Amino acid sequence: MKTDKSMQKISDKIGLPAGSMIHIGEQKVEEVLLSVINYDEENFEIKAIEEIKDVIPFKDSAAVTWLDVTGLHKPRVLENIEKYFHIHPLVLEDILNTNKRPKIEFYEDYFFILLKMISFNEDKKEIDIEQISLILGKNFVITFQEREGDVFNPVRERIKNGQMRIRKRGPDYLLYALVDIIIDHYFLLLDKFEEVIEDIEEHVINNPDNQIVQQIHDIKRNYIFLYKSIWPLKDVINNLIREESEFIQEATLPFLRDVQDHIIQVVEIIESHRDMVSGLMDLFLTNTSVKMNKVIKVLTIIATIFIPLTFLAGIYGMNFEFMPELRWRWGYPVIWIIMISIGTTLIMFFKKRKWL
Amino acid sequence: MKTDKSMQKISDKIGLPAGSMIHIGEQKVEEVLLSVINYDEENFEIKAIEEIKDVIPFKDSAAVTWLDVTGLHKPRVLENIEKYFHIHPLVLEDILNTNKRPKIEFYEDYFFILLKMISFNEDKKEIDIEQISLILGKNFVITFQEREGDVFNPVRERIKNGQMRIRKRGPDYLLYALVDIIIDHYFLLLDKFEEVIEDIEEHVINNPDNQIVQQIHDIKRNYIFLYKSIWPLKDVINNLIREESEFIQEATLPFLRDVQDHIIQVVEIIESHRDMVSGLMDLFLTNTSVKMNKVIKVLTIIATIFIPLTFLAGIYGMNFEFMPELRWRWGYPVIWIIMISIGTTLIMFFKKRKWL
Amino acid sequence: MKTDKSMQKISDKIGLPAGSMIHIGEQKVEEVLLSVINYDEENFEIKAIEEIKDVIPFKDSAAVTWLDVTGLHKPRVLENIEKYFHIHPLVLEDILNTNKRPKIEFYEDYFFILLKMISFNEDKKEIDIEQISLILGKNFVITFQEREGDVFNPVRERIKNGQMRIRKRGPDYLLYALVDIIIDHYFLLLDKFEEVIEDIEEHVINNPDNQIVQQIHDIKRNYIFLYKSIWPLKDVINNLIREESEFIQEATLPFLRDVQDHIIQVVEIIESHRDMVSGLMDLFLTNTSVKMNKVIKVLTIIATIFIPLTFLAGIYGMNFEFMPELRWRWGYPVIWIIMISIGTTLIMFFKKRKWL
Amino acid sequence: MKTDKSMQKISDKIGLPAGSMIHIGEQKVEEVLLSVINYDEENFEIKAIEEIKDVIPFKDSAAVTWLDVTGLHKPRVLENIEKYFHIHPLVLEDILNTNKRPKIEFYEDYFFILLKMISFNEDKKEIDIEQISLILGKNFVITFQEREGDVFNPVRERIKNGQMRIRKRGPDYLLYALVDIIIDHYFLLLDKFEEVIEDIEEHVINNPDNQIVQQIHDIKRNYIFLYKSIWPLKDVINNLIREESEFIQEATLPFLRDVQDHIIQVVEIIESHRDMVSGLMDLFLTNTSVKMNKVIKVLTIIATIFIPLTFLAGIYGMNFEFMPELRWRWGYPVIWIIMISIGTTLIMFFKKRKWL
Amino acid sequence: MKTDKSMQKISDKIGLPAGSMIHIGEQKVEEVLLSVINYDEENFEIKAIEEIKDVIPFKDSAAVTWLDVTGLHKPRVLENIEKYFHIHPLVLEDILNTNKRPKIEFYEDYFFILLKMISFNEDKKEIDIEQISLILGKNFVITFQEREGDVFNPVRERIKNGQMRIRKRGPDYLLYALVDIIIDHYFLLLDKFEEVIEDIEEHVINNPDNQIVQQIHDIKRNYIFLYKSIWPLKDVINNLIREESEFIQEATLPFLRDVQDHIIQVVEIIESHRDMVSGLMDLFLTNTSVKMNKVIKVLTIIATIFIPLTFLAGIYGMNFEFMPELRWRWGYPVIWIIMISIGTTLIMFFKKRKWL
Repeated sequence: MKTDKSMQKISDKIGLPAGSMIHIGEQKVEEVLLSVINYDEENFEIKAIEEIKDVIPFKDSAAVTWLDVTGLHKPRVLENIEKYFHIHPLVLEDILNTNKRPKIEFYEDYFFILLKMISFNEDKKEIDIEQISLILGKNFVITFQEREGDVFNPVRERIKNGQMRIRKRGPDYLLYALVDIIIDHYFLLLDKFEEVIEDIEEHVINNPDNQIVQQIHDIKRNYIFLYKSIWPLKDVINNLIREESEFIQEATLPFLRDVQDHIIQVVEIIESHRDMVSGLMDLFLTNTSVKMNKVIKVLTIIATIFIPLTFLAGIYGMNFEFMPELRWRWGYPVIWIIMISIGTTLIMFFKKRKWL
Repeated sequence: MKTDKSMQKISDKIGLPAGSMIHIGEQKVEEVLLSVINYDEENFEIKAIEEIKDVIPFKDSAAVTWLDVTGLHKPRVLENIEKYFHIHPLVLEDILNTNKRPKIEFYEDYFFILLKMISFNEDKKEIDIEQISLILGKNFVITFQEREGDVFNPVRERIKNGQMRIRKRGPDYLLYALVDIIIDHYFLLLDKFEEVIEDIEEHVINNPDNQIVQQIHDIKRNYIFLYKSIWPLKDVINNLIREESEFIQEATLPFLRDVQDHIIQVVEIIESHRDMVSGLMDLFLTNTSVKMNKVIKVLTIIATIFIPLTFLAGIYGMNFEFMPELRWRWGYPVIWIIMISIGTTLIMFFKKRKWL
Repeated sequence: MKTDKSMQKISDKIGLPAGSMIHIGEQKVEEVLLSVINYDEENFEIKAIEEIKDVIPFKDSAAVTWLDVTGLHKPRVLENIEKYFHIHPLVLEDILNTNKRPKIEFYEDYFFILLKMISFNEDKKEIDIEQISLILGKNFVITFQEREGDVFNPVRERIKNGQMRIRKRGPDYLLYALVDIIIDHYFLLLDKFEEVIEDIEEHVINNPDNQIVQQIHDIKRNYIFLYKSIWPLKDVINNLIREESEFIQEATLPFLRDVQDHIIQVVEIIESHRDMVSGLMDLFLTNTSVKMNKVIKVLTIIATIFIPLTFLAGIYGMNFEFMPELRWRWGYPVIWIIMISIGTTLIMFFKKRKWL
Repeated sequence: MKTDKSMQKISDKIGLPAGSMIHIGEQKVEEVLLSVINYDEENFEIKAIEEIKDVIPFKDSAAVTWLDVTGLHKPRVLENIEKYFHIHPLVLEDILNTNKRPKIEFYEDYFFILLKMISFNEDKKEIDIEQISLILGKNFVITFQEREGDVFNPVRERIKNGQMRIRKRGPDYLLYALVDIIIDHYFLLLDKFEEVIEDIEEHVINNPDNQIVQQIHDIKRNYIFLYKSIWPLKDVINNLIREESEFIQEATLPFLRDVQDHIIQVVEIIESHRDMVSGLMDLFLTNTSVKMNKVIKVLTIIATIFIPLTFLAGIYGMNFEFMPELRWRWGYPVIWIIMISIGTTLIMFFKKRKWL
Repeated sequence: MKTDKSMQKISDKIGLPAGSMIHIGEQKVEEVLLSVINYDEENFEIKAIEEIKDVIPFKDSAAVTWLDVTGLHKPRVLENIEKYFHIHPLVLEDILNTNKRPKIEFYEDYFFILLKMISFNEDKKEIDIEQISLILGKNFVITFQEREGDVFNPVRERIKNGQMRIRKRGPDYLLYALVDIIIDHYFLLLDKFEEVIEDIEEHVINNPDNQIVQQIHDIKRNYIFLYKSIWPLKDVINNLIREESEFIQEATLPFLRDVQDHIIQVVEIIESHRDMVSGLMDLFLTNTSVKMNKVIKVLTIIATIFIPLTFLAGIYGMNFEFMPELRWRWGYPVIWIIMISIGTTLIMFFKKRKWL
């Protein structure tokens, strides 16, 4: 699990004027895909378009228009969005620069929300991070994704199905549904991570080795990264709810508060997971220390018993001519008795000290 | 003590529209049990009902109606509650999803409070956690429990008895009594935990072993979990008190402030327990380190004294033909004297360094 | 120093209605003692009374009435106070339950303050904790103590003396004087504790042993406990000052602000002491680690020098028939020279590495 | 990387009256350079001037005037600025004293912003820090730099180019552009630092040695220093946005909010880097501890196996006359068998304990 | 560096009424010295007086009167100040009790500021702490110092000189100048401390020993103490600026904001120094641990190589009659070859593990 794309050289742009439309971040799709969904309670239309200007007829209808832009590497597309939807150039700059932190900005004609889609890539065993931008206007929502993917698919399905509440509501409810689905993915990710933590915990308890330290360190970094990417979202949602605006209908507020609840829960889970992870490091260290203690005890016991005995044996291995003991009839058995007494005394000493 | 059901896959629901009534969490009772208590100062009636619609006659009376729902796995029951009591679908979704954090929500016709009943299961040596939801309306209270249990029994008894203050008061006082009894259980749990901490402390001081590390780690995790489950309740009660509403009578406020006091005390106890537990880990580590020091000292003393002596004995165990000392008459006693002097010198050296 | 009565089973009361007058906590005096002091600028009267109703004549006079209740185990006494002084049952419940955290509550006819008298019991080497409750009414103050003691005596003396400012002022000044004397005792306790910390520090530096770990751990627990018992008092005093009420005269405010200053200072001292104590633990651990390093160095030096030499001696202790060196005339002196060179080389190696 | 100039004796000035114009900090350029840029949508003029008074004609024109002062060691220059621009002496004192923390001050006729240009000097492998002061007046901006450098060059180029937005806007937009470019340099620096952290991490994992501790310590200090130099800027920008003033046009606000976003991001990156660095220290320590454990295990295994065997060999190296075993025909092979059994038993014991 | 006078028994005063004028703290001068400075733009007069009443003629003039009191042990002097300047007895009690924390109090006729003069006593290598109290009235300033010293001398000189701004301004500017000079001394002290930290850092890196632990511990305590003594001053200055009062002229505000800046900077420097010091402790511990690792490696290498070889030598030192190897012609050289192979194998093993 590596997450080192968190800082892809925002600095490449130094000295350019603000609002310069340069895509910062890796290019994740071949083509820029544009799709439009237009719906109200009765009607539903979905269409892939080639040019931004094709959206104009939809935009001017009373129905809700959802323009989804996948791929950010063609500035011309975004320039057209600037032109037809009157979006501030700084907003488009933010959309293109995929290193931004989550935020919300309120303009007269639209709201701009930027957040992160974070998922676990099972193949590469990495965290995948994608910047998602949403613009909510009077009767439209524009979404920007870095790469193709089915993250918004369930919402699309619900709109298509037609029986759901979503068709009866405005673009604010659509915005809610889109943000909600992204936050739901955070839970998925945290589920995955919780499994990893539990795996590591089992390892630490039963079979701690060098590698586990690396794993704890990696997951710790991942949580630093997750926290940084997610917690600003709390303020985003708070501000969205607090902002009294014609764009957000009264009836949508309970749903936004639900999202707020979710995001607080996500942040709290991350915090408690971080506590758990640092607890694991402590557990590992303490276990290591306890084990070292045991190893050293074994060494000490063996050395303390045999070093004096070896010394004694060494004494009677000396070649002095005049060593009366060597000639005694019972010298050898007596030395054995002495050695055994010393040994048992030491063992008892260790028993008393509870080292054995 | 394990608490790993804290995250039972909220993510299973991804892509479903908000307000989808799917019960997330394990099913803890066979049947969904419905009971109604209806009381005012003079009258008291308790009745088990089959269908939600049976509660209608009670609901329309002037007396306080308490509908208790045990078991959450029959969505139809909740749909009826939605229908007859006009509860927002998001509220019912929250009731069904037992992974929610404590919260309060204010709707026009009712308040919704969600909290956690936490108790210690003596049999399984585990923490039992149950999500309790309460809805306070103009003249009714609805409670939702995950499983059968006697947690609300004392309140039921007090209502039955009739002499108590509770019969003279409205549904807000009933709400207070129910929340209060849940918080009282937190104190029970913390009592239990404090005993565990004191047990561990005694162990750490007198008889520290490997297992104690595991126990400290477990209790630490439990406190992370407890803190997460309880502290949002502080805000819940604060908001309940601050919200000026017709549902809460002036006379109930001192009681709610009492609850607020209790919950602050619970949070402070948890915090001080967490400090104690991390103090225990430090104590254990320091003790381990002090002991290792002692063990190593013993090893060093024994090795430092006997290794040079063994060397000396080794010298005179060599088989050189020309070793004049070997032939001296007093060679053997002199070597003993030398060895004893070396030994006592080293012992004095250790005494001076306070190693002995 | 033990403080484990901090949680005397608040849980024993679960399921009882709020306001149940049951004394929770150990009984600390035989009898419940009631004393009344009545004073104004000219007059002073002190009297021990038997029944609460005896206080009525004093209560109705214009003078300041101070009713002191020592001992909390007779509910009937408190019921009478409820009756004659119109105190809310929840207040009396709080007074009886000696596990409460410090707090202030404002009622229409009186203020209720609950705080902790904490002192160091020199005999038992323990912290003594006693819950003190104060009720301030229009022209009276009621104080509740758990046990007999002379904590309020200096105030009583000042009232008796008559020349002091206290006689000219109202019950609010009396309240101030009583709270102030309790906070002054915190300084006494912290003086005592600072001595203990300095003792421990000296021990850690000069003569660290196993026991000191235990002492540091104990004092750490004491500070956790102290902090928990004292810091809520900050809010109590803040609220007392902020509450604009007829009970507090303008002229008393500077005195209350003085108390506020004191309590802030107490909390800051506790915090800096806690920093110091955890500094001591670090110092101890670092010292232990430095010492272990030294011990291991001695072991390593001795072993590294003598193990190779002993090996060499072992070589020439072998009994091979064909070992030419054994027969050399200068074999024995040469081996000594070799050994001495090895030894000095190793010593120089250690000197270079600064191990010696 | 050293940063010890952070406290260049602010104390040298003790006792001087406030507003004393003495340059505190090292002198970084030979000459004080003054350059004026005057521009509006149509015209652009750049000119190096000798004396402050030469700026007067520009100042009085309607166009935007940007006076750039490089070098702070000639008080007379600043005195003239005080005189011709009516700047408060305390402001000029702050400009001269290069140890100030970032701040903003609002005066009636101008705003004063002080911040730090921080860059990484590749040659000296040090952090370069330079204090930049900006004064925004009705139609002018004055900038003060400590040394020559091209930090503001890109802005100058954009003004010169003429097609850019900057020419159409007022001095507030110029101020924004200048502050923005400084903050962009923070990202550059953090990019550089992130590389260093990743280098260190690789080292810690693959090849940890003594030196790495020093490097981690150094980078930690650098982050302490960075944090101190940058985070007050958050308040500076907040205050700039919140201050409703004629100097800041409505249209410039989105740009300032963009800067605010950047600075928050910088602070968050610094915080997460600090977390990472302290994680590295933990990783290093744990790795060290794991390795020590392994080393000690090897020692223990070798010693535990051979010390008893050596003792046994010592026994039969004794020279007692009456040792029956020595004469046995199979004594020597039997002792080998015994020794091998002891050895294999011990090895199996270590295998069971997972030490091998 | 010792600072243990921080708590000189505030408790000695328990039970005394508030406002009791007893000097708590050591007596630092022989005599109580009184000096008066009277000045306006034209005139300047300085005079040592004997009695407080001698100040009356100055006090009633329109000029600014600065009364400086050095030495606090004569209560009568202060009683006269109470009498002639109408100062609240609690203020005078605070002035006398030199254990107070910095604070500001607003009375109708004057402001009272209490702060700490902290300096480093080069002779005793200790921190000197002195409580300074300032009273600002309509046209006077009273200062109280514990001991003689020249801390306010530079201000006195500036007044005497007469050309300075100070003569044209009121007593609020004098107050500012006095507070400012005290804060400037904090910078001096922190300069001194920074040098100490750098010294310690060099020691830790190049030549760590036991003593350095003690030094780190001492400086840590000093910072705990400094922080406690200085940071309340932040609030003092904030409140002084926020309080809209006739005593503070509009023109003095920028100077007070400058002081505010300084105090924030002091607090930030203390915080970053504390971070540095705890970084040093970590560095020392890590270095110690790395070194212990090296020592143990040496031990292990030597022991692991020679213990098996010594065992082998021991084998052939046994005296069995039937040991065929002993009689082989090449037994001795073969055993040498075997031993050398074992030794080189082990060395290669250690090389592979990077222990050598």
